[in-house]
Amino acid sequence: MRIVFFLYEGLTTLDIIGPHDVLSRLPGVEPISVSKDGGPVMADTGALGLVATHAMTDIDSCDVLVVPGGVAGTFAAAADEEILDWVRRMASTATWTTSICTGSLILGAAGLLDGKQATTHWAAMDLLAAYGAEAVTARSVQDGNVVTAAGVSAGIDMALSLAATIAGDEAAQAIQLGIEYDPAPPFDCGSPAKAGPEIMERASSVF
Amino acid sequence: MRIVFFLYEGLTTLDIIGPHDVLSRLPGVEPISVSKDGGPVMADTGALGLVATHAMTDIDSCDVLVVPGGVAGTFAAAADEEILDWVRRMASTATWTTSICTGSLILGAAGLLDGKQATTHWAAMDLLAAYGAEAVTARSVQDGNVVTAAGVSAGIDMALSLAATIAGDEAAQAIQLGIEYDPAPPFDCGSPAKAGPEIMERASSVF
Repeated sequence: MRIVFFLYEGLTTLDIIGPHDVLSRLPGVEPISVSKDGGPVMADTGALGLVATHAMTDIDSCDVLVVPGGVAGTFAAAADEEILDWVRRMASTATWTTSICTGSLILGAAGLLDGKQATTHWAAMDLLAAYGAEAVTARSVQDGNVVTAAGVSAGIDMALSLAATIAGDEAAQAIQLGIEYDPAPPFDCGSPAKAGPEIMERASSVF
Repeated sequence: MRIVFFLYEGLTTLDIIGPHDVLSRLPGVEPISVSKDGGPVMADTGALGLVATHAMTDIDSCDVLVVPGGVAGTFAAAADEEILDWVRRMASTATWTTSICTGSLILGAAGLLDGKQATTHWAAMDLLAAYGAEAVTARSVQDGNVVTAAGVSAGIDMALSLAATIAGDEAAQAIQLGIEYDPAPPFDCGSPAKAGPEIMERASSVF
């Protein structure tokens, strides 16, 4: 089972690294990463980069495709016809096509969300309709073989659920314990409903 | 405020990327990454790499040092005198020296945990005593200016708490909302006490 993590310039690294550290540890999988030209890409923070193991031209099929979000970089990727063609081709071969955060806008731009329920980062929810998707507020949404997760850290929850679907509950539980995912956030403000308008406004200026 | 994310061959990427995506978004910080020679390093999964913005010789001080864990790569790093010298020098300038998962073994090997309370990944807890540390089972442990977090995903919680200490609760809350950290793990098995012996045994074979 080949799992492809897509990397592009300006991505939010936690979007892809959460699922990477979950799904790559499934038994018997071939986890690889792909960037447009196989070279490194810079994170949206500018503080570090990610390097892919493959270029888009190297890889023409997969079982699971994972597409992360980002800020400006995501809009550039969603307007790049070479990327969209490749995402469409990969999705046509995949058992599961997944996104995290605004990665769903790339799936949408590739035409993969038309008529589907989907989610994204809370601040981008209004943008899904332009791709014919029905926006749903949820930690993750499955519609057919497309699974979209909410913002950034939601990719960890989505990937653990997908791991259970692919390899069974015990395999997923072993990974959850392995990454010691027993979350204890210091605040209860991880969604707009819990955070309130002041923190929302402040968050909007950070991202 | 300069925040340094240390990258080394064979690291667990979620260890460093959780804190990276939290601390890099603090107002007014200079987030950078350092690897031994400034080149890319491969993740413990072999599925992707990380690229640093700087080499060890470029950077001789910081305000926050973040040291991730890994599997075999961590033991190699903890036995590398060049790395340990650099970690010691950086820690001597830092307001906060932090680690995630088995990253605490690197701090320990550098002599920074002698007589201190510290934590690490549950599977590595027995190894802390060799460095003169008192092992504590907790999501994260602060002793003086050293903060050690438990396994892998615990770095997100540790970094949000540190963000609040550095910049105040509202700044940290904005980041928690920005990364939509409203965790909803599919299972309640993220610690040994919750998972039980069978899942622990299975997890030990994954990592």
